[in-house]
Amino acid sequence: MSDAPHVRDLPVGIGATGHRRESDSMGMIDVPADRYWGAQTQRSLLHFGDIGPEPVPRAVYHAFGHVKKAAALANGAAGRMPEWMASLIARVCDEVIDGELDEHFPLRVWQTGSGTQSNMNVNEVIANRCIQLAGGVIGSKSPVHPNDHVNMGQSSNDTFPTAMHVAAVQAVASVVTSVTALRDAIAAKADQWRDVVKIGRTHLEDAVPLTVGQEWSGYARQLTQALAGLERACADLYELAAGGTAVGTGLNAPPGFGAEVAWRIAESTGHPFVTAPNKFAALAASDAVAAASAGLRGLAVPLAKIANDIRWLGSGPRAGLGELVLPANEPGSSIMPGKVNPTQCEAMLMVCAQVLGNDTTVAFAAAQGNLELNTMRPVMIASFLQSAGLLAGACKTFREFCVEGAALNNARIAEHVNRSLMLVTALSPVIGYDKAAEIAHKAEHDGSTLREAAVALGHISAQDFDRVIDPVAMVGDTAMTGDT
Amino acid sequence: MSDAPHVRDLPVGIGATGHRRESDSMGMIDVPADRYWGAQTQRSLLHFGDIGPEPVPRAVYHAFGHVKKAAALANGAAGRMPEWMASLIARVCDEVIDGELDEHFPLRVWQTGSGTQSNMNVNEVIANRCIQLAGGVIGSKSPVHPNDHVNMGQSSNDTFPTAMHVAAVQAVASVVTSVTALRDAIAAKADQWRDVVKIGRTHLEDAVPLTVGQEWSGYARQLTQALAGLERACADLYELAAGGTAVGTGLNAPPGFGAEVAWRIAESTGHPFVTAPNKFAALAASDAVAAASAGLRGLAVPLAKIANDIRWLGSGPRAGLGELVLPANEPGSSIMPGKVNPTQCEAMLMVCAQVLGNDTTVAFAAAQGNLELNTMRPVMIASFLQSAGLLAGACKTFREFCVEGAALNNARIAEHVNRSLMLVTALSPVIGYDKAAEIAHKAEHDGSTLREAAVALGHISAQDFDRVIDPVAMVGDTAMTGDT
Amino acid sequence: MSDAPHVRDLPVGIGATGHRRESDSMGMIDVPADRYWGAQTQRSLLHFGDIGPEPVPRAVYHAFGHVKKAAALANGAAGRMPEWMASLIARVCDEVIDGELDEHFPLRVWQTGSGTQSNMNVNEVIANRCIQLAGGVIGSKSPVHPNDHVNMGQSSNDTFPTAMHVAAVQAVASVVTSVTALRDAIAAKADQWRDVVKIGRTHLEDAVPLTVGQEWSGYARQLTQALAGLERACADLYELAAGGTAVGTGLNAPPGFGAEVAWRIAESTGHPFVTAPNKFAALAASDAVAAASAGLRGLAVPLAKIANDIRWLGSGPRAGLGELVLPANEPGSSIMPGKVNPTQCEAMLMVCAQVLGNDTTVAFAAAQGNLELNTMRPVMIASFLQSAGLLAGACKTFREFCVEGAALNNARIAEHVNRSLMLVTALSPVIGYDKAAEIAHKAEHDGSTLREAAVALGHISAQDFDRVIDPVAMVGDTAMTGDT
Amino acid sequence: MSDAPHVRDLPVGIGATGHRRESDSMGMIDVPADRYWGAQTQRSLLHFGDIGPEPVPRAVYHAFGHVKKAAALANGAAGRMPEWMASLIARVCDEVIDGELDEHFPLRVWQTGSGTQSNMNVNEVIANRCIQLAGGVIGSKSPVHPNDHVNMGQSSNDTFPTAMHVAAVQAVASVVTSVTALRDAIAAKADQWRDVVKIGRTHLEDAVPLTVGQEWSGYARQLTQALAGLERACADLYELAAGGTAVGTGLNAPPGFGAEVAWRIAESTGHPFVTAPNKFAALAASDAVAAASAGLRGLAVPLAKIANDIRWLGSGPRAGLGELVLPANEPGSSIMPGKVNPTQCEAMLMVCAQVLGNDTTVAFAAAQGNLELNTMRPVMIASFLQSAGLLAGACKTFREFCVEGAALNNARIAEHVNRSLMLVTALSPVIGYDKAAEIAHKAEHDGSTLREAAVALGHISAQDFDRVIDPVAMVGDTAMTGDT
Repeated sequence: MSDAPHVRDLPVGIGATGHRRESDSMGMIDVPADRYWGAQTQRSLLHFGDIGPEPVPRAVYHAFGHVKKAAALANGAAGRMPEWMASLIARVCDEVIDGELDEHFPLRVWQTGSGTQSNMNVNEVIANRCIQLAGGVIGSKSPVHPNDHVNMGQSSNDTFPTAMHVAAVQAVASVVTSVTALRDAIAAKADQWRDVVKIGRTHLEDAVPLTVGQEWSGYARQLTQALAGLERACADLYELAAGGTAVGTGLNAPPGFGAEVAWRIAESTGHPFVTAPNKFAALAASDAVAAASAGLRGLAVPLAKIANDIRWLGSGPRAGLGELVLPANEPGSSIMPGKVNPTQCEAMLMVCAQVLGNDTTVAFAAAQGNLELNTMRPVMIASFLQSAGLLAGACKTFREFCVEGAALNNARIAEHVNRSLMLVTALSPVIGYDKAAEIAHKAEHDGSTLREAAVALGHISAQDFDRVIDPVAMVGDTAMTGDT
Repeated sequence: MSDAPHVRDLPVGIGATGHRRESDSMGMIDVPADRYWGAQTQRSLLHFGDIGPEPVPRAVYHAFGHVKKAAALANGAAGRMPEWMASLIARVCDEVIDGELDEHFPLRVWQTGSGTQSNMNVNEVIANRCIQLAGGVIGSKSPVHPNDHVNMGQSSNDTFPTAMHVAAVQAVASVVTSVTALRDAIAAKADQWRDVVKIGRTHLEDAVPLTVGQEWSGYARQLTQALAGLERACADLYELAAGGTAVGTGLNAPPGFGAEVAWRIAESTGHPFVTAPNKFAALAASDAVAAASAGLRGLAVPLAKIANDIRWLGSGPRAGLGELVLPANEPGSSIMPGKVNPTQCEAMLMVCAQVLGNDTTVAFAAAQGNLELNTMRPVMIASFLQSAGLLAGACKTFREFCVEGAALNNARIAEHVNRSLMLVTALSPVIGYDKAAEIAHKAEHDGSTLREAAVALGHISAQDFDRVIDPVAMVGDTAMTGDT
Repeated sequence: MSDAPHVRDLPVGIGATGHRRESDSMGMIDVPADRYWGAQTQRSLLHFGDIGPEPVPRAVYHAFGHVKKAAALANGAAGRMPEWMASLIARVCDEVIDGELDEHFPLRVWQTGSGTQSNMNVNEVIANRCIQLAGGVIGSKSPVHPNDHVNMGQSSNDTFPTAMHVAAVQAVASVVTSVTALRDAIAAKADQWRDVVKIGRTHLEDAVPLTVGQEWSGYARQLTQALAGLERACADLYELAAGGTAVGTGLNAPPGFGAEVAWRIAESTGHPFVTAPNKFAALAASDAVAAASAGLRGLAVPLAKIANDIRWLGSGPRAGLGELVLPANEPGSSIMPGKVNPTQCEAMLMVCAQVLGNDTTVAFAAAQGNLELNTMRPVMIASFLQSAGLLAGACKTFREFCVEGAALNNARIAEHVNRSLMLVTALSPVIGYDKAAEIAHKAEHDGSTLREAAVALGHISAQDFDRVIDPVAMVGDTAMTGDT
Repeated sequence: MSDAPHVRDLPVGIGATGHRRESDSMGMIDVPADRYWGAQTQRSLLHFGDIGPEPVPRAVYHAFGHVKKAAALANGAAGRMPEWMASLIARVCDEVIDGELDEHFPLRVWQTGSGTQSNMNVNEVIANRCIQLAGGVIGSKSPVHPNDHVNMGQSSNDTFPTAMHVAAVQAVASVVTSVTALRDAIAAKADQWRDVVKIGRTHLEDAVPLTVGQEWSGYARQLTQALAGLERACADLYELAAGGTAVGTGLNAPPGFGAEVAWRIAESTGHPFVTAPNKFAALAASDAVAAASAGLRGLAVPLAKIANDIRWLGSGPRAGLGELVLPANEPGSSIMPGKVNPTQCEAMLMVCAQVLGNDTTVAFAAAQGNLELNTMRPVMIASFLQSAGLLAGACKTFREFCVEGAALNNARIAEHVNRSLMLVTALSPVIGYDKAAEIAHKAEHDGSTLREAAVALGHISAQDFDRVIDPVAMVGDTAMTGDT
């Protein structure tokens, strides 16, 4: 163990040009002189840089900051690492967490399936930044070594899934916030429109009436349930693999290391992480991420339905359903002047398609683990975080630019109720299903009103008809719409 | 080789009760005395009978009939098997092809992934039926042995994929027939309604007009293209694995055996099968089935769109789009008397959902082969044949009970055209996009007609307006609708 | 209300041949005289019988028995229906629940998307069976009417999703039982093999050792978590739509009807069902089934991994990994004598593929609801129940015929540990990562042992090497394997 | 028509800071002064900028360059637009094609589902760049107007799908190049290793021998077939929607416009594009992209199999199959020194997972069209182009860093062949399947060689055994490996 160096207060950045030499167990390699990364990062760029541009999401690196910090502090507190080194690593981890070192994490999703190269990227960047602050020679691995110190008590095989879980939990929190706001906006509309009677539609066909508020209370309820489902689906994300090291046995990590790292991460993130009770499963599988992905899909399903409903209800203005008036945010057509389209609904539907596809990717990848390790991890977390980000984003703009400004076309709504034949349903308990059906068929055939057909057939008096057929009464007690 | 036995003319069936003993390389096992199957079939029932009820599709066994017949005739012609035996096996294969032995093929999809157990089921049934006809003792494997004779020159690893391809090609032929009839019915409607001007809808919003015939010509064209795509997607199904035996080298099969089996199958089925030029790929992969499954999906995609359109266009009767009148095949509601629903469209959409899901199953399974063999085959062919059967069936009933009886609500269609604001588009080339948009916005705002708004704004004279805004002219030359 | 008829005690069955006439609101139609079903069932057979053979699962009808019974008893208790009629309907419902009327439910998945035809099938069968028992004329709808009585206070739109949830909950219970037994069998193996040290493999490559018990504890843990996840994913299945009738307003159902039906179903099934707090969501969506389907997928993901591991570990016997000896249940090849294959693993993998595909179907269907009703329901519940049945079945046979009989090839396991280079990892904390890597590369290059390479390089003495490199010590405390 | 302005030769770029005002039919809006885009682009950023960072792929804009150029030249040639304007627009289109204006296309995938905003972005940028070159006031829409001139004869509804097809065809060309190179590299290995006899493995279990070259010839053949399948799957991409304008009728486009635009695009891109014979289908659906996506999936399926095989064959080095030696490109572990992993195989498998997921997204989106327009287009083309890019990239690095450097471990391969029991298969035609199986079981049970067991059982003489059991003879004529 080296003596405590003098740690300076230097801004992030290396004032050098050209290249420097870095080494790993395979030998020397040139890296850009103004970057903190080392040999293994550079090798990954060389061998994987051409596949596709998709970076490992920033959020994974920020999560790694929490992991490395927790490990360093645990190692320092137990004397496995000098206090000054633990403090120094922790300080640099804060820079990682804050995104100050983002541009030093260039690797792509398409790399080794364990995420080893990203873990080493983190180790190398933290080590070199520590070395810089400690006045050492960048690339010398002294006084802070990327493997022996920054990765002490760790393996990619336990830290990468740990970082995945941390990043996923944080992303889900954003989703919950955004969807909750959308749900609340919908619930407010449901309340506002509680008593506006409209025609119901089942099989797309005219059915018995309900109120607009009741209809929208259903949307709100779907989101409430999907949110609760998402949280349940994420339960296993709180179990962290750290402490399992290479294959789950915890080789090279001291007893209790995993538990300590977990509570330190819980403390630094504010989320109730714990150490996974079985590290073999935690390394060999990423089932928790697949389950959580299904939770995101559980939002896409009702959001697709809601977006579809809203655009159909707003269709027209003159040859559609036309019951809803959506905000006119932008011109809708490059050729048809004055056209306004339900673009927020369309963007939402495209997001839902992407989330469904990503969920297929994640499930496929989760099923492909072998023996002690799942090696499909980067694509899993990238897909998951993309889905989470898109849902959070789309719910925000859908709320702001579509739901909140939506209004009713009350005249159209009333016209639809008044013309409907399905009000006949209320006659069934009085005259029976068969006679009621006869009335409906006659009215449809004659183009007459239900009242005319009912009286003509002699199944009920006009007076009784007027008493029984009351759309407002048919929607029930709208104060009891039920939970949203 | 045994002398030619006297072959009798016995109906299918074994007049015995209780059990008899059959044997394989693992020993003796009881089988039902009235069944032709032997020990390996029985073991499969024992070990796999409880997973699920889904049988290996009948069509696979019928296809196996062609395969075993071709192999026997090839072996007989070359003297590797006595002529009488080849003839006898071929005769029994005809019974297999005709479905007369269907109840002797009890195995499930959920078995060994190579389909070995179904191949042995076929071998055992054919052998025992031959033995019966030859006057031997059922179960004695003499004079016809399931492995040494019925399976001569073959392996499950080459015959099962061969039977898959044969069954798949036959199923696709039914799909093509059914979809072609639907496409033709749609094209006939397109022709019938060629000049009925209606409002177009893009983004669900009112757009410029087209004719109903033009709209339906698009449906027909989508199906035409999907049919052509299906046929292209099935190209590799015509290559047969037979001749590769266990790992592709053709061990225990004579030179030229695969080619001869292929042309014999081509002859007996009427489809242009050839021997796969590379047997290693033919055994190790079932990529051809995955590609063909995508071809079926290529039908589900437009069929979902068409079914959706038709039910929306038929929505109402009084509070929907209401442009189309669908046949009232059955009461639509247990509670709402007189309700009629677009049930054929819904069945079609459910079929499409199943086809998409099956395609996911098939693609997943196809990607899971290892080394010299794909062992996910029974689920692939079962999913494929289900999809094919459902598409063939759904297109038939959709045509018969929805498309052929569909009629137009001409009054409604005319009303929609006349009210539309998007006719303004025709003004753009005359007065520019910006002024045209101003007119549309004013009409929408005032609830006025386009003509009123145009004249009020002074952008065009009433006379010129009437000349330019002619919905009939706006749909172009409907005689040139283009290919369907 | 009619007087109480004399109810006789007749076995199930109608002793008639030919046809009888039944009627609905569309008119008369012939039905087979020996069947209880009526006009609407017959119309569905006519219009949907040719699409595909897949029946609406029996379990849905059994669940409908609970629903109709609960409704009748609720109606009877409140005086909306005579007591005798409520009792009679309830009695017939018990026959439905027990499967005695199964053959009278012939309809297919491919029908109206609301399941209306199956609901009417149930209504018709129960009504006619009641009529038979009450001495009436079958088909007369008197004294028990399918709509007015059996369907009283109900709609297909609320009863079909109710029956879906009941059937799904019951199916999941079977899955839990079967998977729990498999998990326990795996955990027993983990305990039995707790101290057998083996080589770990990450990226399929030799890694540091663990014990076979540790490896299998991971399998057990994955299943434990997936089971808990499944139960969480099913939470919303306990909410029942009954009481919402046609569009969620509860039109034609009395206040409190939904709650009463729910507790009666809870009582008769033993599952904690409650009435859905918001009926608009309960009818318009089947999100709960999609979420539960993801819970089933959550089992398929680890099961695929476990099945894959077990077949690879058992690969050989002489040119594979060969650490595991799987039961030889049946001959493995029609051409290669003596071959034994991991067929239970393959069947499990095929089941997993089907479950993943079904989940795609269900999610797609769930996203396609419109306005007041999701009309993709029959395919959703059929896919869901197939997945559940397959998982339950496959876990049973996988346990019985693969896991319980699995044994270790201890000699092979020991040989692998002893040859491994990755034991070098234990040197890292002593001599540093870089020197340890140098040793491993040298041993690999020379084909020597680690010990030889280490000493030759002078990085550690032979004595220290022997102290540090102890595979048994490297696996940690196996008594603390962690939860399974 | 305005007089020809003096066109200057100015570099791309606007030397201004702050904002300028742009207008559209909804009014005025500020845009950054140094950007060419206008009001509609800005509105899209405002309303859709927060959903997610994924841009509409550059390739779509470059394709738009071809579309706009073709349209302008067609309009100019016919006198609908002054020659100078057509030339000027065409010149700016060349800048678009060359990517010089890339940074002026900021919009995201998550926008209107028709891609209207991207079409308007293109129109605005081209118009303003033309205005700049013509010495006009940027934002004045004069002398070149984004709608009236750049979009002349066009709609988003026909140009966006046209640009999709152009971009997709170009991307597929890259895929074909990269996969062909990989296929050729594999075929070269197959040729090099043509006569190296190895043990075959079916069901992962030891089977009869083949040569390494035969095995790899299967890989090559799979790719050859997938490439052919991809090309067939892309057939409909060559049909372009241009000329259909808003709903397919071609309103505001002159007769023949679509055909002329198509041949001009064919000429400028070198791909055989033609005008779609039915524009209604071309606008309402993007089935061609879904079919082409399935073609990409058709590559992912064999690539997943090949990558899996190669990593398993290379597993070890001492406790795996170990027949293949893969290049050691980088250190494999942050904790296990000296470990080398099959990272290129893993990256390939992750790419395959992404391609499968993207294909689900595309198929879902393709099925969601309504009436005259599919409004899920941006997500379709983004997913498609991502899949294409990833496959092209992954095949390149997989070839360079895995396949080309792969070598055989001949000693290991020979050891596996010599120990195998499945050579017994060659005895079957001589002594029958049952006796051969008896020999294999005895050898396995005794741990003896096949020869010892065969002689001990008396089924064959040692002399005959040695004659029949010849692994080299068992692989057949390797010169006739078949097509790759």
